[in-house]
Amino acid sequence: MTDRKAHRRPEGSNTVVEVGGVRFGHDPFPVIAGPASIESEGQLMDAAQIVAERGASILRGGTFRSPSSPYTFSGMGRSGLALLEEAGASVGLPTITEVAEGGDADLAAGHTDMLEIGPANMQNFELLRDVGRTGMPVLLNRGPSATIDEWLWSAEYLLAEGNDRIVMCERGIRTFEQSTQNTLDISAVPVVKDQSHLPVIVDPSHAAGNRSLVTPLALAAQGVGADGLAVEVHPSPDEALSDQLQQLDAHGFAALMDALGISRMRQAVDIVDREIVRLFARRRELSLAIGRVKAARGMPVQIPEREDELLAIIREEAVLQKLDPEYVERIFKEILAESRAAQWRDREGPPQLG
Amino acid sequence: MTDRKAHRRPEGSNTVVEVGGVRFGHDPFPVIAGPASIESEGQLMDAAQIVAERGASILRGGTFRSPSSPYTFSGMGRSGLALLEEAGASVGLPTITEVAEGGDADLAAGHTDMLEIGPANMQNFELLRDVGRTGMPVLLNRGPSATIDEWLWSAEYLLAEGNDRIVMCERGIRTFEQSTQNTLDISAVPVVKDQSHLPVIVDPSHAAGNRSLVTPLALAAQGVGADGLAVEVHPSPDEALSDQLQQLDAHGFAALMDALGISRMRQAVDIVDREIVRLFARRRELSLAIGRVKAARGMPVQIPEREDELLAIIREEAVLQKLDPEYVERIFKEILAESRAAQWRDREGPPQLG
Amino acid sequence: MTDRKAHRRPEGSNTVVEVGGVRFGHDPFPVIAGPASIESEGQLMDAAQIVAERGASILRGGTFRSPSSPYTFSGMGRSGLALLEEAGASVGLPTITEVAEGGDADLAAGHTDMLEIGPANMQNFELLRDVGRTGMPVLLNRGPSATIDEWLWSAEYLLAEGNDRIVMCERGIRTFEQSTQNTLDISAVPVVKDQSHLPVIVDPSHAAGNRSLVTPLALAAQGVGADGLAVEVHPSPDEALSDQLQQLDAHGFAALMDALGISRMRQAVDIVDREIVRLFARRRELSLAIGRVKAARGMPVQIPEREDELLAIIREEAVLQKLDPEYVERIFKEILAESRAAQWRDREGPPQLG
Amino acid sequence: MTDRKAHRRPEGSNTVVEVGGVRFGHDPFPVIAGPASIESEGQLMDAAQIVAERGASILRGGTFRSPSSPYTFSGMGRSGLALLEEAGASVGLPTITEVAEGGDADLAAGHTDMLEIGPANMQNFELLRDVGRTGMPVLLNRGPSATIDEWLWSAEYLLAEGNDRIVMCERGIRTFEQSTQNTLDISAVPVVKDQSHLPVIVDPSHAAGNRSLVTPLALAAQGVGADGLAVEVHPSPDEALSDQLQQLDAHGFAALMDALGISRMRQAVDIVDREIVRLFARRRELSLAIGRVKAARGMPVQIPEREDELLAIIREEAVLQKLDPEYVERIFKEILAESRAAQWRDREGPPQLG
Repeated sequence: MTDRKAHRRPEGSNTVVEVGGVRFGHDPFPVIAGPASIESEGQLMDAAQIVAERGASILRGGTFRSPSSPYTFSGMGRSGLALLEEAGASVGLPTITEVAEGGDADLAAGHTDMLEIGPANMQNFELLRDVGRTGMPVLLNRGPSATIDEWLWSAEYLLAEGNDRIVMCERGIRTFEQSTQNTLDISAVPVVKDQSHLPVIVDPSHAAGNRSLVTPLALAAQGVGADGLAVEVHPSPDEALSDQLQQLDAHGFAALMDALGISRMRQAVDIVDREIVRLFARRRELSLAIGRVKAARGMPVQIPEREDELLAIIREEAVLQKLDPEYVERIFKEILAESRAAQWRDREGPPQLG
Repeated sequence: MTDRKAHRRPEGSNTVVEVGGVRFGHDPFPVIAGPASIESEGQLMDAAQIVAERGASILRGGTFRSPSSPYTFSGMGRSGLALLEEAGASVGLPTITEVAEGGDADLAAGHTDMLEIGPANMQNFELLRDVGRTGMPVLLNRGPSATIDEWLWSAEYLLAEGNDRIVMCERGIRTFEQSTQNTLDISAVPVVKDQSHLPVIVDPSHAAGNRSLVTPLALAAQGVGADGLAVEVHPSPDEALSDQLQQLDAHGFAALMDALGISRMRQAVDIVDREIVRLFARRRELSLAIGRVKAARGMPVQIPEREDELLAIIREEAVLQKLDPEYVERIFKEILAESRAAQWRDREGPPQLG
Repeated sequence: MTDRKAHRRPEGSNTVVEVGGVRFGHDPFPVIAGPASIESEGQLMDAAQIVAERGASILRGGTFRSPSSPYTFSGMGRSGLALLEEAGASVGLPTITEVAEGGDADLAAGHTDMLEIGPANMQNFELLRDVGRTGMPVLLNRGPSATIDEWLWSAEYLLAEGNDRIVMCERGIRTFEQSTQNTLDISAVPVVKDQSHLPVIVDPSHAAGNRSLVTPLALAAQGVGADGLAVEVHPSPDEALSDQLQQLDAHGFAALMDALGISRMRQAVDIVDREIVRLFARRRELSLAIGRVKAARGMPVQIPEREDELLAIIREEAVLQKLDPEYVERIFKEILAESRAAQWRDREGPPQLG
Repeated sequence: MTDRKAHRRPEGSNTVVEVGGVRFGHDPFPVIAGPASIESEGQLMDAAQIVAERGASILRGGTFRSPSSPYTFSGMGRSGLALLEEAGASVGLPTITEVAEGGDADLAAGHTDMLEIGPANMQNFELLRDVGRTGMPVLLNRGPSATIDEWLWSAEYLLAEGNDRIVMCERGIRTFEQSTQNTLDISAVPVVKDQSHLPVIVDPSHAAGNRSLVTPLALAAQGVGADGLAVEVHPSPDEALSDQLQQLDAHGFAALMDALGISRMRQAVDIVDREIVRLFARRRELSLAIGRVKAARGMPVQIPEREDELLAIIREEAVLQKLDPEYVERIFKEILAESRAAQWRDREGPPQLG
């Protein structure tokens, strides 16, 4: 019985996959983004700027597509590859594209930084070997009916070619539930991370098939501990040649990145201030509740030892946080005074707002 | 065609379900916790203390069980109900228990604060009507092969009895993937919240069937925007009479609550205070960064209009939070003074801790 | 560990379930038929006559329905029960109806010959116990997401009440495939028969949700070795109050019974004659092939010992079939003469049609 | 919108796919049989003889395998192809083998009569195009999570290359049920036949993954109206290099063919003769029944117009079957004479055997 190279080894560390400076399995939640299909130079450049400006780590664009119908747009092919290379260079992002046929692998390897294996090809073992041999980083999508074990066996085909630069991508399995395109198997992330040393990311766009679910599912992926995200972004989704319903526009992508806390806006001072105020409100509620217990038990509003203990805790935390403890104590004395006042008011009747 | 009461109405607000002071759909991520089965007074009291001390909002314990085998432990029944009531009272938590038969509903209604409909009974319409008529808050689990639409139809049976105190609980659907007991359909949370006004929580214990996945899935649930959590906690899971693999012990539950950031600290004043201090630190960092930008551009440390605007925002938030705006302004003036001082110190050299 | 009574015992015989003279597990392919819902006396009497005249064994009609919506027709209830009893008596068929609530079981037991547990109630253990206690024969439908093992556990609840008069009914499981309402798990029939001693029938109407598939699936059920069938038949399916798409009309039911070989039509003389002629053609082909082998090996066209042997076999079979052997031999001598003539013709050139 | 060539055209006839004299969509239930993998000359020759002697129509053997593990036996490759050609020739059967890579298709096309696309490659569009271009008959397996529509789209890739020699093969879909390897979607047969003009066969070996289910599922396939069967047969399944549990041995295959009624007897004159005799018996019964009706109604035994009509039908069928109508009429006159005699005997008392 041959050991499986994709499996976690006792004492073994996790594999970090580096793609043009982005490190899956190390960096905090890198985001792969771009259009389902490269449709024109203008469309791709617009998409590249949208995703680069809002914090994406890697630019993705499909040029060798495998539509289920032989009669529909199957991608720009080789010419799309040149556009992708150019767009990545112009916005300073590494690039990735899907390859579906053996011949594409070598071709794409010369123009991009990472190759993607689509879900329909997860068990196209010839393609896996060809891609493995390029030595390029690989994004390996799970097939919609593949068990986790079969998915890891497909990774094994790449590993058997000496290529361990593999990022696993969960993008939904096929179930009876029809309100989403596929059912995102969010549990697959911790299961793969438990069994394997490879990084795992999530593609909420293909899982949901519906752009309104992309942000909540991305936050679920972040919560569950995924190593990143792959999403579809198009400058004008309604005019896209494929996957219209699931591609985000510039606004949607900005909102996603914002929600993920990657954008700078979330750290604006006003917002932190709002949070401080909310905590004051929370503290007041707790303090009033305690006040009522004290009243019920006939205890005084002010218990000096408790206040001393509390201020000691505060000073300790301030030092820990490298804040001036005098300054913090001043503020908390203010807070405690207000707290006592509120408790007094509460003893006299329903709480009065000042 | 009758309108469906479970559906979101245009302009309609979300339903908040209040259970013994806990408000699903309003409070931040309430956690229902307790043992799969009530096995003895000691076991239940231990479990109750574990979950109460670590911040659970509601105590759950099964006493009317419906095992798939007629020959296994089917719960303590009525006597378990009394134990649950007692345990809840002793730790100050409201309680919930599953009812599986019409007769149980009235019985349990007299002893608990919320009733649960198990997944196998999601389409037991007689039970739904009986439970609906009690007027009690209901936790309605999704059946493992129920579509979201069917699940909402089951809620409709409760609503048709005039009971809208419904919390939906996603706990996994049946798929081909066997590495988890069921496949947690995390997308169901935003889909239900889009279609309905009812709150939705997640039960990662039953979905995974494996305690090692409970915390990552709980974080996914928090990320996706669920309105809370239901988890199984047992003082000694290995000796549990059922569901051994998925119940958390005290240590596991503490780690979960810590990970969720709502651990025991959550309800303790000391901890809120610590959070306030940390936000001061965060604010100080942001303020210093802004100060450096101002310095680089030759701008003054104090920009009165900006401070006025900031104080206006603060007062507005204070009113919103029902806090005395004078009090809050006093504190923020203190904060701003310290902030300016820090910026001056920073202009003169590396920050000095006071 | 308690032995499971539903499991096949070594050396154990199969259970035969007798319902008003019909024996599941013994009679050749009994058919349960009737409308999804009893809607009126006229509708039920029409349906009863349709199914009785065309060879159904048991009349089924739903009167306690459990629609997923609380607002739709939920059956005629108790009054439908009286109609069913009357209709069964008038056409001389035993009857079956579904019960969904504990109270229905005793009520229905007084008016029908068999009770049905619907798929949504497969794990309504209270109902299983109530129905088990009636001692009545039970048709136990598989839930759409129930494993075979869980389905057998539900049978165990009936058996634990001392009731072994159980007929299992496969009616499709929930999968991703949407071209049928459920996916008929035809393999469940041999799997249950291997694991259990209970008879298993198939309900193609609910599995397919589409009347055009009922006959092919019924033939599959017959092929796989099912112990019978349950189908929905309505005098005017397009006007039915439920399940419009899947109910057969009189014509469709006649065609089904014909296809199953239960009707008399299939035995029409003309058809048998056509089959005889086709076999002559088949025999001629084989005979010519043999003739060519004989020619190639230089053997004579007529080998008397072979003809004698062949005629001996024929006479033997004739006696076995209770036919006059002289008569059969006369015919076969004619056949052999033609056969030799054909072989001669074949030696002289390409076969000539006479 | 391009019309889909795989779809049934109004008024269009079904496609018949001819493979070395075997006609899918026309012949009664042709059976493809042989080992999962060609392992050696001896193993293949033994398998070939087993299947040929018992009535298989096409010999199948895998030589380009695609195991999910890169470390296990992946087939004999090109040398297996030569063995397959030789074995087919020696037992007089056309052959089929699976191709998994573009290069295999042209290679295999020179040595076999039909190419097979495995389920993992159903959406390997490059392979579909390569195989389509060979112009060879193709057995197109359904992927385990493919909808019927997607499966027909894959056929479209072959049709788009001008190749309509396609036989669809249903072999199970992935569901939660684990008692079989996959869930045989028996309904897919009538659904595809309704939507498409292509023949559809069933592979019960891969669906069940368990040899004990092969015969009942094959009978279900025959019942549902499938156009044939594909089964795995190995001289010593327990020593097979793959798929041990599902391959039939010689005895199992004989039992299968017997059950299908097309076993070795099928091609043996003695058996056809026995069938003819049985039909005589069947005819005699029908004739006597009619005779009794005539007697009851006072009608004569011989009704010349009916006999003329009957002989006309017979002559017509004879011409259709390319038999000499004089010869057939001679035989049927003999049959009619016997029939009348039997009716006379019957009028005089209980039937007498001559």
